Amino acid sequence: MGVIDLNADLGEGDGPWRVEPPADDALLDLVTSANVAAGFHGGDASIMSATCAAALTRGVAVGAHPSYDDREGFGRRPLAVPPDVLRAQVAYQVGALVAVASSVGAQVTHVKPHGALYNAVVHDDEQARAVVEGVLAVDPRLAVLGLPGSRVLAHAAAAGLRTVVEAFVDRGYRADGTLVPRTEPGALVTDPVVAAERAVRLAVDGVVVAVDGTPVHLRPDSLCVHSDTRGAVALAAAVRHGLRQAGVDVRPFAGRLPDEP
Amino acid sequence: MGVIDLNADLGEGDGPWRVEPPADDALLDLVTSANVAAGFHGGDASIMSATCAAALTRGVAVGAHPSYDDREGFGRRPLAVPPDVLRAQVAYQVGALVAVASSVGAQVTHVKPHGALYNAVVHDDEQARAVVEGVLAVDPRLAVLGLPGSRVLAHAAAAGLRTVVEAFVDRGYRADGTLVPRTEPGALVTDPVVAAERAVRLAVDGVVVAVDGTPVHLRPDSLCVHSDTRGAVALAAAVRHGLRQAGVDVRPFAGRLPDEP
Amino acid sequence: MGVIDLNADLGEGDGPWRVEPPADDALLDLVTSANVAAGFHGGDASIMSATCAAALTRGVAVGAHPSYDDREGFGRRPLAVPPDVLRAQVAYQVGALVAVASSVGAQVTHVKPHGALYNAVVHDDEQARAVVEGVLAVDPRLAVLGLPGSRVLAHAAAAGLRTVVEAFVDRGYRADGTLVPRTEPGALVTDPVVAAERAVRLAVDGVVVAVDGTPVHLRPDSLCVHSDTRGAVALAAAVRHGLRQAGVDVRPFAGRLPDEP
Amino acid sequence: MGVIDLNADLGEGDGPWRVEPPADDALLDLVTSANVAAGFHGGDASIMSATCAAALTRGVAVGAHPSYDDREGFGRRPLAVPPDVLRAQVAYQVGALVAVASSVGAQVTHVKPHGALYNAVVHDDEQARAVVEGVLAVDPRLAVLGLPGSRVLAHAAAAGLRTVVEAFVDRGYRADGTLVPRTEPGALVTDPVVAAERAVRLAVDGVVVAVDGTPVHLRPDSLCVHSDTRGAVALAAAVRHGLRQAGVDVRPFAGRLPDEP
Repeated sequence: MGVIDLNADLGEGDGPWRVEPPADDALLDLVTSANVAAGFHGGDASIMSATCAAALTRGVAVGAHPSYDDREGFGRRPLAVPPDVLRAQVAYQVGALVAVASSVGAQVTHVKPHGALYNAVVHDDEQARAVVEGVLAVDPRLAVLGLPGSRVLAHAAAAGLRTVVEAFVDRGYRADGTLVPRTEPGALVTDPVVAAERAVRLAVDGVVVAVDGTPVHLRPDSLCVHSDTRGAVALAAAVRHGLRQAGVDVRPFAGRLPDEP
Repeated sequence: MGVIDLNADLGEGDGPWRVEPPADDALLDLVTSANVAAGFHGGDASIMSATCAAALTRGVAVGAHPSYDDREGFGRRPLAVPPDVLRAQVAYQVGALVAVASSVGAQVTHVKPHGALYNAVVHDDEQARAVVEGVLAVDPRLAVLGLPGSRVLAHAAAAGLRTVVEAFVDRGYRADGTLVPRTEPGALVTDPVVAAERAVRLAVDGVVVAVDGTPVHLRPDSLCVHSDTRGAVALAAAVRHGLRQAGVDVRPFAGRLPDEP
Repeated sequence: MGVIDLNADLGEGDGPWRVEPPADDALLDLVTSANVAAGFHGGDASIMSATCAAALTRGVAVGAHPSYDDREGFGRRPLAVPPDVLRAQVAYQVGALVAVASSVGAQVTHVKPHGALYNAVVHDDEQARAVVEGVLAVDPRLAVLGLPGSRVLAHAAAAGLRTVVEAFVDRGYRADGTLVPRTEPGALVTDPVVAAERAVRLAVDGVVVAVDGTPVHLRPDSLCVHSDTRGAVALAAAVRHGLRQAGVDVRPFAGRLPDEP
Repeated sequence: MGVIDLNADLGEGDGPWRVEPPADDALLDLVTSANVAAGFHGGDASIMSATCAAALTRGVAVGAHPSYDDREGFGRRPLAVPPDVLRAQVAYQVGALVAVASSVGAQVTHVKPHGALYNAVVHDDEQARAVVEGVLAVDPRLAVLGLPGSRVLAHAAAAGLRTVVEAFVDRGYRADGTLVPRTEPGALVTDPVVAAERAVRLAVDGVVVAVDGTPVHLRPDSLCVHSDTRGAVALAAAVRHGLRQAGVDVRPFAGRLPDEP
């Protein structure tokens, strides 16, 4: 009988990048706010435009998700960017998203830093201020999302920007309210049922139970579900369903902006 | 009860790129040759190294998969590259993969152009010759994969390189042996059972049935299953199983190189 | 005596890119409007920010210089971009520059497409409309620069945007008012004296003499000197001096915007 | 009289990148070894091919100049790359250059790490070993250039690779043989006459005078002149002339490889 080779094209990634269909459509049916990548760690004008249009159709609020200028590292590498450069980079990304959203009739309501920048502006005073200045250069009506107690929320509040406190339903917490590092046990919550229970407790009581059993008061305005993991859609669906079952009204914080009807 | 927002990071693609776990591991258990992206449309040194090491462990032959220099278009856009530049670009990619493979103890056995370059060297005499010259600059023992009757195989044979004829189990054919364009009906074969039947017929008889019912004699040395579609693993598994069931010995063409023991 | 090697790091370009100090500072002292690259063919947030600040200091008007998304080709390769994608890309770049300019206290007054996009919107109706829609999504007070008779100026005027006609002091013209292609004799004017004479004639009479001797009426609102050639600064200085000598008042068209004091 | 605007396209850099004609041709007439960028901080297949061909014509030895994978930072940012990734990256770049050189009939004689990687492998034992392993995966006949006493030369020698000690004619030295940091006085030697004198002393006596007056014994096999500064050509010409005047025979170290005729 015959002899045959069987070949396949492999290794076609690029750092963390692959050519695969995304789960964005499914997630847009479940969330109430979308933080849209603005080109520095991911995203391009075409995808930004399509995402804004899809969010608009579903009544999902659109936010900018600016990053360090680090495509290769997907914005996850800590970088010592000078504050004036960071301010320009944040203004660049937020301004670009506002314009692309406008081109499809959508409005941007908030800004949430991405990856290593998100982590940096918890503690780094200079970078936190640079982010806030970059946001202010675009539109002082934009809200800023961040961790409770983070420097970026302090600077945003001082500058008169609305602040939105965020909690993670799929990450473990320590007793001091910080996240369990990904390299330690308990860092990730992957069970949709557990994630849904945590979401309800956070939404109703403002509390999450830390890995050592301590209840931690976070009082979040928004819950984050990650989108770049295989089970993200199932987890988000369970969270949404659990919140509904518990009588929680799931809707964009942006709808409660003081200057909006 | 509570009110809550639910947010997710979206739009984090870049042209065709997403951040997702790849199916490479599963496919490496099913194929006998891997065409490894060499950095121009996808791939980086780290992924190339890991892919070569994984292929070596499984006895899968390693080939270079050079592309036009077009990361943003994933190598799928036709480009009018001058022949001397193309020769240098092919040498660059093949030489890089040979070196990376060597660094983990693997050897490169073949070269298969990617995407728009693959299509161009079917008909374009100048580009076909440039590809062959680029391969020759690295190692004259490398084989070249291509469509039956393509210019690249003619030039490779004239230069003394081994040629390997390839057929696609998941693409429709026309009566003249060319592929049905992706924009026309019958372009894709997505049913694993049908793909397996076609694979067996191609391996045993060298024949595929065109969309108009004509049997086409392709006499392939290798069958290609694509890797960048959701159902790729299931389809490849069905093809592999079907070939085994039909008594076809599935192994690398590289094992039959005349100059190897 | 001794024997020694002498080595140097070479070949460190990337397509058209080199690591060299730019002539931007010298040119900003000579021109009255600066078209600032917005990241798609060149430019990054840091350079955009510094350029806007330097222009502001000198009273030079700031414009956006959007391009096809083609860093590797420096925006000089014709690309068949779908209109909705092009609209988003133009909005992205213009919005980004407006934001970065704002972060240093500068305002953007105009938009001039770059390279292959500039050439395309002379004739291509769909792309010209997409560019205008992208500009409109950011700010309807922005002016659009282009060739006399170009489609982009027609669409801009129809949409109520201010239009600015541009002529080139360092390029040869044909009798029909189009530029002599770079591959033909007479394409470039490199002599600063000749360029200055042409500038004066264009500013005073609105006329340029074509390669065949025909006087062509262009009636430009703005003259362009290129910045990416070795002799650019000397040529711009001669043009500026010649215009002053001829009594021409050299100042930004933006100062004459109807809606500005 | 007329009123006119004068505009120019500005800000078209990208980090350290500009669109400018390079000084490579002039430098290739002056040096005896060229370290060719291999695509990670600069360079592309086309430029590599042209540079190798130009070097071959002039009898200039060709070396690979591998870098961290950091185009945006021009390879000048310190990066904590895992050793196995760095090994693959070095193999990738060296293998690519060997192939491109081969495609134009040239041979690669040596490897010199670039920028931050060059500095890292002076002290970093793991990265130094990774570089040597990457070189070995390509060709054990390649020489490695580095600072006297650097870890990379120690590992290269231990692995049986030829080592070449390098000194800089345009950089200041401290009494311990290390370079004066660029942020301190005396870091740069920009006077061609002084650079030529230093070159002669280094070639004849193996000695450079440190900023504090101490004579330092470096005993270099090769002198480096930088290529990415405005005055590089004039400085290299003065150095070459000074060495000739002093009776120093300026020729590639590669001509003295033991295994070559």
